[in-house]
Amino acid sequence: MRLYNMKAATNPRRVRIFLAEKGVEIPMVDIDIMSGENRSDAYLAINPRGTLPALELDDGTVIDESVAICRYIEALHPEPPLFGTGALGQAQVEQWQRRVELDGFFNVAGIFRNIAPQFATRAAPGAAPDTKQIPELAERSRALLPRFFSIVDAQLAEHEFIAGETYSIADITLFCTIGFARWVKIGIPDDCRNLNRWNEAMLTRPSAKA
Amino acid sequence: MRLYNMKAATNPRRVRIFLAEKGVEIPMVDIDIMSGENRSDAYLAINPRGTLPALELDDGTVIDESVAICRYIEALHPEPPLFGTGALGQAQVEQWQRRVELDGFFNVAGIFRNIAPQFATRAAPGAAPDTKQIPELAERSRALLPRFFSIVDAQLAEHEFIAGETYSIADITLFCTIGFARWVKIGIPDDCRNLNRWNEAMLTRPSAKA
Repeated sequence: MRLYNMKAATNPRRVRIFLAEKGVEIPMVDIDIMSGENRSDAYLAINPRGTLPALELDDGTVIDESVAICRYIEALHPEPPLFGTGALGQAQVEQWQRRVELDGFFNVAGIFRNIAPQFATRAAPGAAPDTKQIPELAERSRALLPRFFSIVDAQLAEHEFIAGETYSIADITLFCTIGFARWVKIGIPDDCRNLNRWNEAMLTRPSAKA
Repeated sequence: MRLYNMKAATNPRRVRIFLAEKGVEIPMVDIDIMSGENRSDAYLAINPRGTLPALELDDGTVIDESVAICRYIEALHPEPPLFGTGALGQAQVEQWQRRVELDGFFNVAGIFRNIAPQFATRAAPGAAPDTKQIPELAERSRALLPRFFSIVDAQLAEHEFIAGETYSIADITLFCTIGFARWVKIGIPDDCRNLNRWNEAMLTRPSAKA
């Protein structure tokens, strides 16, 4: 098994933190998105979508979505459970995972992909056709983030972790979203004291360095 | 338990088809997104995000993301399994579910929300701040769809269902995406014969009418 990875990229980081929390090590192969190596023939032969990360199994099967890779690892290494336990617990992890992705992560990506000079003609991820940036979309994404911060801060006022009282993959997605937001010079608002408290706690976990 | 629903909307339809495939019935309450009822104080008191569907449990707990609602139902009614079985099977359902959402469903939504007159000032879903449409984003989304059709057609050339040899939630997401695409006058390309064959088979399932 090996993981196609890029150290600086957010989606691979989600998987690396997940692995660190599980105590699982997988050999990694670095691919550079910035220079477009993820669109090279060599990488597209492995993952035709051209996205990172991708997990290659020993029989050549490739799993190419971060959350799908994490589910595979969860099934092989159930402890500690990071997708929730029980019907409601699993639903709440899924719910917060998606809220954080849709309202947070995708808006940060919507800013970054539409302003970063490296992606001037690659605003859509992976091996999608050449796509021009839309500055107005970056602005829209930026305008939607305060509401996201406010929603997660309110949840963290009542709960230790984002999906409740147990650390989960939704915390990983939130932590990586906060890190990614710094790329576009957006920090946690000062008045989001619960989110700031939570982020400080996340930074002390050994997995934060993964 | 009750499900906040809108008959014509795609995300509630995903849950209704899922329930039909499970043979589970839940009382439904209709909320009209077109007229903005989902942003009324009454509905925001139930689901502050203002999105549909939302599942309200008997103790008042609300689960507000389609896939999270489906996972809750899956845990209560495991048969037939619609999220895959085994480590690789579950990962492959998750992978295709996300490929179909990210490359297909979200692009169709990207067209619809940025051209439909009803959403002129509500291009972001639910109770997000008023957001103007971006015609250029509708065009970008439209330009990305041919590649999506080609990827799912290639998968369906080799497999009966989108995630392999078993019907799953990923088929539901794909089927609803195809239906949603008709709202923006996009049909399955004629040369996607496998996808057309698959869609004909999906239409014969009783759940297609849910």
